[in-house]
Amino acid sequence: MLDTVLLWAEKNKGRWLGDLKSWLSIPSVSTQPEHEGDVRAAADWAKDYLRTIGMTVEIIPTKRHPCILATTPPHLCPPDAPHVLLYGHYDVQPAEPLELWETPAFMPAVRDDKLFARGACDDKGQVHCHLAALTAWKEINHAFPCRVTIILEGEEEIGSPNLMDVVKAHAELLKTAKVLIVSDTNQFAEGVPSITYGLRGLAGFEIVLNGASTDLHSGMYGGAVANPAHVLCEIIGKLHDADGRVTVPGFYDDVQALTEQERKMWAGLPFSEEAFARELGIKEVFGEAGFTTLERKWARPTLEVNGLTSGYQGPGGKTVLPCRASAKITCRLVPNQDPQKIGDACEAYIRSLAGSRVTVEVLRSKGGSPPAITPIDSPAMHAAAEALEIGFGKPPIFQREGGSIPVVAWFKEALGLDTIMVGFGLPNDRIHAPNEKLDLSCYYGGIRTAAALYDLLGSQLK
Amino acid sequence: MLDTVLLWAEKNKGRWLGDLKSWLSIPSVSTQPEHEGDVRAAADWAKDYLRTIGMTVEIIPTKRHPCILATTPPHLCPPDAPHVLLYGHYDVQPAEPLELWETPAFMPAVRDDKLFARGACDDKGQVHCHLAALTAWKEINHAFPCRVTIILEGEEEIGSPNLMDVVKAHAELLKTAKVLIVSDTNQFAEGVPSITYGLRGLAGFEIVLNGASTDLHSGMYGGAVANPAHVLCEIIGKLHDADGRVTVPGFYDDVQALTEQERKMWAGLPFSEEAFARELGIKEVFGEAGFTTLERKWARPTLEVNGLTSGYQGPGGKTVLPCRASAKITCRLVPNQDPQKIGDACEAYIRSLAGSRVTVEVLRSKGGSPPAITPIDSPAMHAAAEALEIGFGKPPIFQREGGSIPVVAWFKEALGLDTIMVGFGLPNDRIHAPNEKLDLSCYYGGIRTAAALYDLLGSQLK
Repeated sequence: MLDTVLLWAEKNKGRWLGDLKSWLSIPSVSTQPEHEGDVRAAADWAKDYLRTIGMTVEIIPTKRHPCILATTPPHLCPPDAPHVLLYGHYDVQPAEPLELWETPAFMPAVRDDKLFARGACDDKGQVHCHLAALTAWKEINHAFPCRVTIILEGEEEIGSPNLMDVVKAHAELLKTAKVLIVSDTNQFAEGVPSITYGLRGLAGFEIVLNGASTDLHSGMYGGAVANPAHVLCEIIGKLHDADGRVTVPGFYDDVQALTEQERKMWAGLPFSEEAFARELGIKEVFGEAGFTTLERKWARPTLEVNGLTSGYQGPGGKTVLPCRASAKITCRLVPNQDPQKIGDACEAYIRSLAGSRVTVEVLRSKGGSPPAITPIDSPAMHAAAEALEIGFGKPPIFQREGGSIPVVAWFKEALGLDTIMVGFGLPNDRIHAPNEKLDLSCYYGGIRTAAALYDLLGSQLK
Repeated sequence: MLDTVLLWAEKNKGRWLGDLKSWLSIPSVSTQPEHEGDVRAAADWAKDYLRTIGMTVEIIPTKRHPCILATTPPHLCPPDAPHVLLYGHYDVQPAEPLELWETPAFMPAVRDDKLFARGACDDKGQVHCHLAALTAWKEINHAFPCRVTIILEGEEEIGSPNLMDVVKAHAELLKTAKVLIVSDTNQFAEGVPSITYGLRGLAGFEIVLNGASTDLHSGMYGGAVANPAHVLCEIIGKLHDADGRVTVPGFYDDVQALTEQERKMWAGLPFSEEAFARELGIKEVFGEAGFTTLERKWARPTLEVNGLTSGYQGPGGKTVLPCRASAKITCRLVPNQDPQKIGDACEAYIRSLAGSRVTVEVLRSKGGSPPAITPIDSPAMHAAAEALEIGFGKPPIFQREGGSIPVVAWFKEALGLDTIMVGFGLPNDRIHAPNEKLDLSCYYGGIRTAAALYDLLGSQLK
């Protein structure tokens, strides 16, 4: 039956692409209040899509953006079918800076066999691989090969503040699942199908420094009043040493060292630092001394400024002494760092550096994310590896990833579920940046993989 | 005759205020291209105003914003009248951030006997004191008490790039002036009329650091690619030492030390550091060790960040590793620092700090401004002191100012003219910031002072 389903999926490529484009056209930016209605529209789109293939779909309201919970009704799957959970998100990052997009972020466009749009890879495109695969199964087989529950949230890009309330409220249903599938990661490289077994966590905060009650004329006051922009730069300038190590006391205390096996496995991957640098348009890589680029990205923690704001930013000059300066900062965490503990350590250190010249606020982000690692050796992992070989024509490699998917740790904690991360993106997909894209070969390979995965899990998890 | 003119000026207060409000309603922001037409409209307003009182007015086009050159025709002043030059500017700073204005920047409003608008103090309000005084002279006396030439530029806030071309083209006329009057400074405090005899200069530049060719996902790349925001903060964090001194090599080489006489004179001024801090809403003053607040503001050079920009600045968070970070910086200079030399020193030092991790651009602003000092003891200074006593009821004090008026040094160089700075603003007028204002008592005192000044210069400079 799988062969027929795969053929059908192949035959309907244009249809899947059209469906995905219509979903991508909805600017479901969860962090920007003006897009609240669009987030809701993207949820409705998914609800309608899943209802069409016979799933039971609920839109579950939260304090901000709704969750979609869809499940295959009993009459549409084998009576003894194992239960599999799929998690994904339909919200996207802001598209700014808009002027750097070659085609508008929310007008999906195909160029050179790549689909360009905000969310093409992260995560609508990858989620849609599963939706298309399930559609193909339903149309060809009139039923699904296993019991599938899908949970799609609209708040992943703002830290999933309400997801676990939804999960806990539906724990009775969700607990019967045997594994959690997530497609929100990358393949190691083009033509290298990959399973991701570890993720970094996240802790975020904003430093806000206030000086005088208003911006001041830099001639009349300059030299006699502390400038918050100077203090901010002094603080941030001290958060790393010359070797690229984070200087926050205690920052590395709980970091789990890399195993020799991992260092060896990664050293064998087809990776060129020169090509990596060239692709990003930089002259040379830079990071913590004593580690390779892959180790830095996957298994070492960071403290990264995401944004700086102070004073006048328009064209020309303005001779002000700004009254305020702020920086948005996130830390990527690795096992066994704790987001709360790292946030506390950063806040305390920043306050100690700030002195008394300006007032200091450290606004802690809610919804930090713990780092995660999943065991490689399990029946579900084997099924995933086989499905990827069917989807992409060769067996996958095992990697970690530098990004954060908080739900992986949360689902483990709340439901005891292990996660299999089967990602279809590529490292150069520019997620979170202008001109985000998804290669069509990854998209169609992802549909084939998902079609095979549900079949293999249905038979192998019994 | 002066008494009658002063009475007339007093009687027409409401009329002068209405005239000034109409000028302030024109958003003549010289740095923002979208206001080009408004700058021109503000020039036309002044042209019409000056023609109405019988002056010969020319609007002189430049590469960007026009200059106004107005002069009293021979039949409207005494045959042997000395020639006096007035310089001012009709352009204004940007009004951003707009949301911090209590009433819109370009809808002048009087509250508590203060006039609120962008340009109320800097410099339309102060220029209008002279225009109103000359109007009163013309209406009462049917002639002016001396020969007056007025040059009003529309590019002061962008560094006066074209002013000196205009001045040189009209040098034959302007060279016959005996003194240059400028009203673009503050009184030392409310009720303390002041003459300013020194100004700081200005050298500006922007640091632009570029990393990868696009913003990157901070999870996928964080730790392995240099972050330009980190490098920018490191650089800026090193531009001052813990004592508030600028660390750029050679920065203080040409600084003329304060004389004991100046330190003593300023120490005797009615100044309270506590009140100064309270008024600005800061807990304590901060600046270069070894100097008082007045010395820091008036006679010590600075390096000040006017704006910082990098990465995501909207609401919420965005986990990017920014590809670009920039800072707008200006230095305030004191005699005998040279803007070009200081700019060179800063650029070289910044490049040396930046290393090779990111690419560095240092964009130098055109139109730096040399610092200036004018001798205190001259007939014109005496006339100005007497005029201020008539205008404000007590003799003035002598101060320097921390701001920059490049034309003062340029006019000296081009025409050999000394400048008398008779300012009517107050230190809390919030020029260059939201809610700029001019106290009506200063405005009307300024009109009286200007009326007396032209009369006194007419008799004392013969």
